[in-house]
Amino acid sequence: MRIGIVGLGGIGGSLAADWRDRGHHILGVSRRAETVDRAIAMGLVDGASVDPAILRSAQVVVLCPPIGQMASVAAQVVPHLAAGTVLTDAGSVKGEIVRAIAPLWPEFLGGHPMAGTEKSGLEAVQRNLFVGRPYVLTPTAQTPPEAIATLKTLIADLGAVAIDCDPDGHDRAVAWISHLPVFVSAALIDACLTEGDPAIAALAQRLASSGFRDTSRVGGGNPELGLMMARHNRAALLNGLQKYQEAIAGLMGAIAADDWDTVHSTLERTQSARPKFVDPPEGQPPQRIS
Amino acid sequence: MRIGIVGLGGIGGSLAADWRDRGHHILGVSRRAETVDRAIAMGLVDGASVDPAILRSAQVVVLCPPIGQMASVAAQVVPHLAAGTVLTDAGSVKGEIVRAIAPLWPEFLGGHPMAGTEKSGLEAVQRNLFVGRPYVLTPTAQTPPEAIATLKTLIADLGAVAIDCDPDGHDRAVAWISHLPVFVSAALIDACLTEGDPAIAALAQRLASSGFRDTSRVGGGNPELGLMMARHNRAALLNGLQKYQEAIAGLMGAIAADDWDTVHSTLERTQSARPKFVDPPEGQPPQRIS
Repeated sequence: MRIGIVGLGGIGGSLAADWRDRGHHILGVSRRAETVDRAIAMGLVDGASVDPAILRSAQVVVLCPPIGQMASVAAQVVPHLAAGTVLTDAGSVKGEIVRAIAPLWPEFLGGHPMAGTEKSGLEAVQRNLFVGRPYVLTPTAQTPPEAIATLKTLIADLGAVAIDCDPDGHDRAVAWISHLPVFVSAALIDACLTEGDPAIAALAQRLASSGFRDTSRVGGGNPELGLMMARHNRAALLNGLQKYQEAIAGLMGAIAADDWDTVHSTLERTQSARPKFVDPPEGQPPQRIS
Repeated sequence: MRIGIVGLGGIGGSLAADWRDRGHHILGVSRRAETVDRAIAMGLVDGASVDPAILRSAQVVVLCPPIGQMASVAAQVVPHLAAGTVLTDAGSVKGEIVRAIAPLWPEFLGGHPMAGTEKSGLEAVQRNLFVGRPYVLTPTAQTPPEAIATLKTLIADLGAVAIDCDPDGHDRAVAWISHLPVFVSAALIDACLTEGDPAIAALAQRLASSGFRDTSRVGGGNPELGLMMARHNRAALLNGLQKYQEAIAGLMGAIAADDWDTVHSTLERTQSARPKFVDPPEGQPPQRIS
C-alpha cells in the first residue's frame, strides 16, 4: 500500500519505519528540508518532500504534526489527495480534530496510536513502538466502512491493538488516565517547592526515593506536552481536576477529623481498583478488534 | 557487637541479616514463637526468643515493630536493657516516637533506615537492602555522642548513608516526598472511579499506560502503610496536602481562564525542579557522614 506520512517526528517516523519494514511504500512530507533529508538517510521513507503534492499517489495519508497544527496541515494536504484516499491523523486528542477535519474530506477518520517516548523529533523514532499498544480509531456515523477496514489492516501490520470509540469518548477516557496524571504529578512537585525552610527543602530532596520518583515522573516531563493536553482537552481535563480536587478534599477532611476508617477504606478502594487500570483483566488479554 | 532486633519483619529481618553477615552477633525478639523459629531457620539471628530478657547482653537494640506499637514495645524492652545500651528504632516517623521513648532511656536515638519493599514480614527480608540508601538519625541535644558514633559505625556496615536531622524536621521532609505522594496518587485512582459512564470507565482502564501506572503506584499500595503515615505524621501531611490543594487550584484556575502562559510556566518550573529530588546534585554524590 502507498502510505503518506505528514510530519516526520517521533510518531510519524516510527509509523513510517514499521510500515516500510512490512513492505509498504512510504511517502514522507515535512515542512523542513533538513528533516526530509534525514528521513531519507535514515531509511524511513521511499520518497519524501517538503511539497504535499507528492501525496497524490497515496492510498492512505496519516497526519502527524503537533496537535496545534493539525487542522491547518489538513487543509494544506487535502487539495493534493486523490479521490478515495483514506485520511487519518495521529493526534492525542480527537474531538476538536475530528470536528475540524471531517468536513474537509469524506474518507477522514481520527486515530490515536498510543505510544511515545520522552524524546521528540526523529531522535524519538523507534521500531516496533506500537506492538501490543492500543491504536484508537474514532469513526463517526459518516465514516465509510472501507476506510475503517483499511486502517485496521495497517494497525494489525504494526502489531498494535485497534480500539474503536467516538471522538469525545476518547478524550474523556484519556483525560482520566493520561492528562489528569500529568497535572496531579506536576502539582506534587510544585507543592514541594513551597517549603519555606531551606534546610527542610534540602533534606526532602535528599531523602526523595522511588515513591516520589514515580509519582512525579509525568509532571516533570515536557511542558509542551502538558500544555497541549490542557489546551486541546480542556473540558474533560477540568472535569477530571474537579473530581480530583474533591477526592483530595475528602482525604484531607478525613485526616483532619481523625476519621481513620474513612482514610483506610479509601486506601483499600484505591488498592483494589488499581489493577483494573494497570493489569490486563484476568482471562482477558488485550484483543485485536477486526 | 551484640545487636538486639525487636520485631522481625522486613526491616528488622533485613538489618539482622546484613549485620550478621558482617560478623555481628544478632539477638532477635518477636511476639510470635513461629516468627522466632523462622528467623532462626532463615539464619537471620544467632539467637531469638519471644522473651525480651535475652536483650540483657545486647550493646545496641533496634526497635522494629509497626509504628503504632513502637512506644509500648519500647516500654516492654527498656526494663531488660543493661546500663549504657544504645537504643534506637526504625520507625518511619520520628517526632512522636522520640517524644515517647527518649524519656524512658538516656541512650535512645531515633532512626529511620529508608528502604523497604512492597512485601511485609519475613517474606520481605532482603540482603543489602540498605546499600546506598539514606539512614536518618535524629539525635537531640541530650543524646550522648558515643551513642551516635556507635550507630554510625553500624550504618556504615550496612553500606547505608547516615544523615542527621532533628525529629520534626525528618517528619516534615518525609511528609513532602514520601507521605504526600501516597495521598496524591490514591486520589488520582479514586477520582477516576467517579466516571459515571461505564463505557468511558472501561475505555479509560483499557487505555491506561505507563503514565497512569507510575502516578498511581504508591496510591495503590498497602493501605496500612498510608494509614500509618496519616495517623502518625498527621500535621506535616495536612500541611503538605493544603499546599498541594493550592497548587491544583492554581492549575485549574489557569486552565479555566485559558491562561496558557501560567500553565506553561508551571510545567517548566516542575520540569526543572524534579531533578533536584530525583538525581543526585551534580558533583555531589551522596556522602557518608562519619
